[in-house]
Amino acid sequence: MKVKIDHIGIAVRSIEESLNFYQNLLELEKSGEKVLEDRGIKVTFLYINDVRIELMEPIRNDSEISKFLEKRGEGIHHIAYQVSDIEHFLKKAKELGYKTLSDKPEVGAEGNLVFFLHPKSVHGILTEFVEK
Amino acid sequence: MKVKIDHIGIAVRSIEESLNFYQNLLELEKSGEKVLEDRGIKVTFLYINDVRIELMEPIRNDSEISKFLEKRGEGIHHIAYQVSDIEHFLKKAKELGYKTLSDKPEVGAEGNLVFFLHPKSVHGILTEFVEK
Repeated sequence: MKVKIDHIGIAVRSIEESLNFYQNLLELEKSGEKVLEDRGIKVTFLYINDVRIELMEPIRNDSEISKFLEKRGEGIHHIAYQVSDIEHFLKKAKELGYKTLSDKPEVGAEGNLVFFLHPKSVHGILTEFVEK
Repeated sequence: MKVKIDHIGIAVRSIEESLNFYQNLLELEKSGEKVLEDRGIKVTFLYINDVRIELMEPIRNDSEISKFLEKRGEGIHHIAYQVSDIEHFLKKAKELGYKTLSDKPEVGAEGNLVFFLHPKSVHGILTEFVEK
């Protein structure tokens, strides 16, 4: 079962301000900005080899990253692993006792099947699995 | 200037316990364990495509990650970017006003030239540059 890192999600207060690092220092290409109204955030992706950096900015106070920003400040929010068979990994995660955030894969923001493992379950890291 | 992610450093209380996720669920290959006496930690690398996960465990209470673990708990400690010309990036980082942890590149644990940017400077992420 081939696994790769798909993206690293980073919670920021302002995508525009954060881009200075990724665009001006690292000179990475970026995607357009996408507003995810239901999740209360907007996101931009930066491309670095075959891994992506996902910058996430809240667009309202009850967004899915507002509590994270309040409690921990800006920083890495999650890691997403791309897998070829998401059902295999979901089944195995459950067998090994990992706490999943949903019972079955759900459709993520980019239209792919995804599921998450609770950070307490993975030594402090919110962990996403994605099948493309 | 080509940039790639070299590794993601993760602070854990026990490498042995954390390996369950990386070895049994993700089925990644791992390196041997290395003790870095002067830094008060031991480290193991997991290989995932051309990126590595670095698990860091303290071997004493005043290790370089002890405060991090005390304050934030287990989780992602730093991201390391591999660059072809570290002097170029150090100079540019200074020009752009980033706060570096050293004035010039230093020899890191793996014998490569490295420098770090302060997390406050990079929106909450301790950032390493490495030239191999």
